[in-house]
Amino acid sequence: MKLFWTPASPFVRKVMVAAIELGLDRRIEIHPTYWPHTWATHTVDFDPDFIAANPIGRIPALITDDGVALAESNWICSYLDSLLDAPRLFPFSGKAHWEMIRFLAIADGAIESMILRRAETLRHPPERSDDFIGKQRDRIARCLDAVERDVSALRDAALDMRHIAVGVACGFMDFRYGQDEWRTSRPQLAQWYEDFSQRPSMQRTQPGETPQSDPKASSR
Amino acid sequence: MKLFWTPASPFVRKVMVAAIELGLDRRIEIHPTYWPHTWATHTVDFDPDFIAANPIGRIPALITDDGVALAESNWICSYLDSLLDAPRLFPFSGKAHWEMIRFLAIADGAIESMILRRAETLRHPPERSDDFIGKQRDRIARCLDAVERDVSALRDAALDMRHIAVGVACGFMDFRYGQDEWRTSRPQLAQWYEDFSQRPSMQRTQPGETPQSDPKASSR
Repeated sequence: MKLFWTPASPFVRKVMVAAIELGLDRRIEIHPTYWPHTWATHTVDFDPDFIAANPIGRIPALITDDGVALAESNWICSYLDSLLDAPRLFPFSGKAHWEMIRFLAIADGAIESMILRRAETLRHPPERSDDFIGKQRDRIARCLDAVERDVSALRDAALDMRHIAVGVACGFMDFRYGQDEWRTSRPQLAQWYEDFSQRPSMQRTQPGETPQSDPKASSR
Repeated sequence: MKLFWTPASPFVRKVMVAAIELGLDRRIEIHPTYWPHTWATHTVDFDPDFIAANPIGRIPALITDDGVALAESNWICSYLDSLLDAPRLFPFSGKAHWEMIRFLAIADGAIESMILRRAETLRHPPERSDDFIGKQRDRIARCLDAVERDVSALRDAALDMRHIAVGVACGFMDFRYGQDEWRTSRPQLAQWYEDFSQRPSMQRTQPGETPQSDPKASSR
C-alpha cells in the first residue's frame, strides 16, 4: 500500500496511528507530499501521481494493494480494519456501533475545525477573518466539551476508532493551539490523554511542520 | 426518527433522497433549522435541542429511534441502510465496496467544496477571497471531471450511495453555480443526470433557500 502523507496533518496521523495499532504500518509505503502555505487559498502545484489518484487534492490518500485510491481518513481506516480477521477499529454492531459513530463524528468535527482554523490563520490580512477563527474555536470547544462528558466511554472500551480520533485531536491542539489551554476545563480528557499519548503509536507519530516544497526536487 | 433539516443543504438532500429511495421517509420527522447568512463566519444562535444533540453544529443530524444523535450524511445514510433486510446504499463487499467508496468520496469532495465556496461568497469584502473561491472551483471541476470519466460505473449499477451523491452534486451546481456551465465539458454526466434528476426522490427534494430565521419564533 502507498500513503500520501505529511507530518502535520491530523487526518494523516489518524491513519498512521491506526496502521501501527493494527500492525499494518510495515505494509505501507510512505509518500511525503509538500504543501506551500498558499494551500489555504490557492490550488497548489500537485504531485501528478497524487492528483491523478485523488482529484479531491487532499491528504491522506491511500492506494490499496488492489490499486484503489481511497480518500478520507475514516474510509482509509475502515479499509485497514477490513484487512484483519476481525475488525478492531469498528468492532461493534447494532446500537453500540452507532453510539461509537456518534462519538467519532464529534472528535472528527473538532479536528476538521482545527484545520479550517489553520487555513484561516495562513490567510493574509485583510482576507483573514477573526470572526471565522472564533467560530472554529467555538466549535472545537463544544466538541471537546462533549468528549469530556463522555470520557468514560473511552476508558471502558478497548482501543477503537474513537480513541484514535480523540487522541489525535488532543495532540493537534497541543501542536497548533496551545494557547487555548484545552486541558483547563476538561480534567477527565486531560487525564485520559496523558495515558493515551504514551502509546508507541502516538509517540511514533508526533506532528511536525510539513515542508513547503520537496527538498529533493530542483523544480517541477 | 427526527432529522434536523434545511431545504438548501446538499448533505441534507443526500439523506432525504436516500430515505425516499429506501422507503423510509415516512418514518422521519423533519425538524427545520434556520441559518442566518452570518453562519459563514460566526457561531449562530442555535436551536438548543439541535446543538445539544450535535455539538458540531452542522446539519444534517439524525436522532435515531434509539435516541442516538448521528452527524455526517454518509454515517446517517449508512444507518438508514442498516434498517433494511439487505443493504442497498452500500451493497458491495471486497474490492467492489472500496471502488464504490473511492467514487463516493470524490462526489462528496465536490459537494464539500460547493459549501466552502458558498460560505466564502457570503463573506463581506475585504474578507472575501476570490482566490479561495477559485481554489474551490478548481476542486469541484477536478472532481466532476473524474466523475465524467467514470459515469459508466453509475450506469452499470443499481442505485447506491454513489448515484445519490453525484445526483445531489449536480443538482447543487444548478442551484448555486449555473454560471459554471458544468455540463459543457461533461456530456456523459449531463446525460446521466438528465435521467437521474427525474426520479421522484430527486423531484421531491429540489433545493430552495433556507430561511434565515424561524417565522414562527417571535424571539429566542
